[in-house]
Amino acid sequence: MKKIEVNKIPYIEEMDGIHETFTEKHAKKDIKTLIEREASQNKIVASLEEAITKCGLKDGMTISFHHHFRNGDFVINMVMDVIAKMGFKNLTLAASSLIDIHKPLIKHIKNGVIHRIETSGIRGELAEEISRGLMEVPVVFRSHGGRAYAIENGQLKVDIAFLGAPSCDPFGNANGYSRDNDKGVICGSMGYAKLDAQYAGKVIIVTDNIVPFPNIPFGIPQSDVDYIVEVDAIGDPNGIMSGATRYTKNPKELLIAETAADVIEASGRFKEGFSIQMGTGGASLATARFLREKMIAKDIKASFALGGITGQIVELHKEGLIKKILDVQSFDLDAAHSLKDNRFHQQISASYYASPNNEGTAVNQLDIVVLSALEVDIDFNVNVLTGSDGVIRGAIGGHCDTAAGASVSIIVCPLIRGRIATIVDHVNTIVTPGKTVDIVVTDQGVAVHPKRKDLQDLLTKAGIKVRTIQELRDNAKRIVGDAASIKYTDKVVGVVTYRDGSVIDLIYQVDESEEE
Amino acid sequence: MKKIEVNKIPYIEEMDGIHETFTEKHAKKDIKTLIEREASQNKIVASLEEAITKCGLKDGMTISFHHHFRNGDFVINMVMDVIAKMGFKNLTLAASSLIDIHKPLIKHIKNGVIHRIETSGIRGELAEEISRGLMEVPVVFRSHGGRAYAIENGQLKVDIAFLGAPSCDPFGNANGYSRDNDKGVICGSMGYAKLDAQYAGKVIIVTDNIVPFPNIPFGIPQSDVDYIVEVDAIGDPNGIMSGATRYTKNPKELLIAETAADVIEASGRFKEGFSIQMGTGGASLATARFLREKMIAKDIKASFALGGITGQIVELHKEGLIKKILDVQSFDLDAAHSLKDNRFHQQISASYYASPNNEGTAVNQLDIVVLSALEVDIDFNVNVLTGSDGVIRGAIGGHCDTAAGASVSIIVCPLIRGRIATIVDHVNTIVTPGKTVDIVVTDQGVAVHPKRKDLQDLLTKAGIKVRTIQELRDNAKRIVGDAASIKYTDKVVGVVTYRDGSVIDLIYQVDESEEE
Repeated sequence: MKKIEVNKIPYIEEMDGIHETFTEKHAKKDIKTLIEREASQNKIVASLEEAITKCGLKDGMTISFHHHFRNGDFVINMVMDVIAKMGFKNLTLAASSLIDIHKPLIKHIKNGVIHRIETSGIRGELAEEISRGLMEVPVVFRSHGGRAYAIENGQLKVDIAFLGAPSCDPFGNANGYSRDNDKGVICGSMGYAKLDAQYAGKVIIVTDNIVPFPNIPFGIPQSDVDYIVEVDAIGDPNGIMSGATRYTKNPKELLIAETAADVIEASGRFKEGFSIQMGTGGASLATARFLREKMIAKDIKASFALGGITGQIVELHKEGLIKKILDVQSFDLDAAHSLKDNRFHQQISASYYASPNNEGTAVNQLDIVVLSALEVDIDFNVNVLTGSDGVIRGAIGGHCDTAAGASVSIIVCPLIRGRIATIVDHVNTIVTPGKTVDIVVTDQGVAVHPKRKDLQDLLTKAGIKVRTIQELRDNAKRIVGDAASIKYTDKVVGVVTYRDGSVIDLIYQVDESEEE
Repeated sequence: MKKIEVNKIPYIEEMDGIHETFTEKHAKKDIKTLIEREASQNKIVASLEEAITKCGLKDGMTISFHHHFRNGDFVINMVMDVIAKMGFKNLTLAASSLIDIHKPLIKHIKNGVIHRIETSGIRGELAEEISRGLMEVPVVFRSHGGRAYAIENGQLKVDIAFLGAPSCDPFGNANGYSRDNDKGVICGSMGYAKLDAQYAGKVIIVTDNIVPFPNIPFGIPQSDVDYIVEVDAIGDPNGIMSGATRYTKNPKELLIAETAADVIEASGRFKEGFSIQMGTGGASLATARFLREKMIAKDIKASFALGGITGQIVELHKEGLIKKILDVQSFDLDAAHSLKDNRFHQQISASYYASPNNEGTAVNQLDIVVLSALEVDIDFNVNVLTGSDGVIRGAIGGHCDTAAGASVSIIVCPLIRGRIATIVDHVNTIVTPGKTVDIVVTDQGVAVHPKRKDLQDLLTKAGIKVRTIQELRDNAKRIVGDAASIKYTDKVVGVVTYRDGSVIDLIYQVDESEEE
């Protein structure tokens, strides 16, 4: 065999990347067996410290996390404690969301380990502290679709993703469950984590359940994974699968849900093959129950249900009332088990779900979405992020994504909560712009966006009394009076972005000076 | 709501991509229903011409195709005819492989529409013409893993991928089968197409089966797809699912297969949880049958089977002898149906299968691979690309990828074919370097690479007589004599690359001058 002179190959300059002659050193052969390789040549490293060092974490970098373990998540606190101990500073923490359990982050913010936060939402003590001015740099709030968009466009550049996974094989095939065993926790879909794994510079899987290769099906493929760290526990099963998912017995919520189902029936979208997403608030969850009766009575089946998936959706699917499920986040064990067992229950990424990057994004195929709200104003703007006291206590989630994508977006909320009006002149924080909100269903009446004359006519024809949003606001005001206005300082603590990255609102520090 | 002055937000310079205030124009709302959108806002365009124009095809660009429809593929010829008619010239055609059915490409090469080809292999008249000097620019041959590597590294930059798909919804979720209907052709896994969809600048799905949204599970997600063209037929079912897959009755092949199974049993890798890939040549396919008996007798189960998947593998899986299947290409209808129905039969991409980019690549987890060969030489180099007449008539496929990855690579081939020796002094074309080849099994003896003293000892201990490769070569020579040496011109017609892109051999134009 004569030596190949690569540079003499005709047209070699057009064959990009072909510039070297093969020699023996190019042929790498490894004679170890699978079992030996699983034991010795895997991606498992001994500790988080080692994985972090190997990934080359530096001060000022951006690290990311998912929130599929919700209020049972051990990963963020565990990783941040290690990072703090290792002496890193000035990091940007980009989580798909933050919950009560993440309050230990307060100390890492105070110590300068965390410089900046991007998230869909924050709850609990951490949220309160941030509203009181804990951070020098405002928190950037993004919707699930907006986060996917920012990651895809390189605007949110994640250096290292730390992704907790309920199962992972020695080479990095990871998932939110395992078909091989029932060990450890389970979270179902890993929709938010999938995108981080795809785009982050380095990816570390944190797991309490190493399973044999190949861990199929996988939510995250090995080709996206750099290192694996095995830990005792990645989460508290109770915290992971509790939270927003519950079936209400509250009569006010049941009334709202029943009305919402009537509205859906009258909306002109309740036809064979319709598509729907339902949130996990009490009233929107209960809507599924009333809708079920109508679907059976009229023999109408949905083509798919989308979004955060609950056992209620799974039940409808099992009954044959919903043909397919697209699951970006499993909200309870029933949903997680269905994802594992059911071949028409598909795990989808945050991008597939809601990114405004793509015409075919699933939210754009929605006929109906049912969403909750903390406040709605007379321009139909919705707030799901700050409470009536101006303090952060929620998450954008897919709210503005689905409202924009759905043919009909329905907001379900009580007219008043305690002594606080839900329908107001101006929401504290605009998350979802009124232009994308079509119908507001309260326990004391339904309002339709004036732009949607078509829906107003359909509802009226079906015998549903439609009021103006101003009437609802007036009714609320009559019962609870004017709310005392919230005092803020000039300090910006949160930047609320719309799904395309534009700034839709700012959250200011709550001013407690008078309380002293 | 007062106007937000984005440039006054503290630390805004750190919030990459956030530089605009939300205004009404940012909130896009589309009130059409799913059914209306499927009809009017989908990615379906009226013709290939329209899709090509919208994708901005230009002279000199690179276009790609997959070969999952094998010798039944209508897509490449159909697309190239349209492109030729539209007047484009000077294109690079990057196919995952080319087969007999693609002989119409000859005219497009002659007319200057196709300037350069990249592929894993070529068969039939097109291959013969190229060996005779049809193209000015040499064809670049890449293995499946090498192609994935080149695509991932940007060395093979695909401008437009034309991907035939047996099912696709109006937004681009595509797959090699449909769980909604049995219309049209079916090809099972779309492993090679998945990677093209992910990396190509523009992606056009060509389908004969538009199904309702959401087409789940999907091999290619809508987020990777730009346009969809519906055509009458994308392939001939007989051509798609026939070809290399067959069960041999040839006594010589059965003898080789039985010996190969004995060799596997003796190799020290035949243990509970072992992993295996078997090619689709007669002898390697038949090996599965003999191995089955040994697995049952010794109660040994494989953890997974990899690669191009056949009904034989599916049968072993159904019997519980192989736990999981990783499928980059389904070779017959049984395999395709199993992928559709079986939750431990997983579709994987070419990168996941064989890219040298990643430690965790599936070929690297193989204990055993059984591969065919056209020629093996005394340095254990293997040729699967050119015939004994020097003419191109095969494909690299995953040959060198699996040989390098597997703990034990076994080549099965007859000592002679007709009057031609298979074991020779020097192979015509080196595809898989001898360093990665461990055992050669012929109908007249077994040879082990001298580097693999470990395997030689194991085989001898098991009573398998091990010969030197020189003995096998001598035996072959004794029977058929020395082959007449092939006459070549100086013109390079093919550049054979190893999986990392290095040039392992060149294929020259066959010289037919004396035949005149």
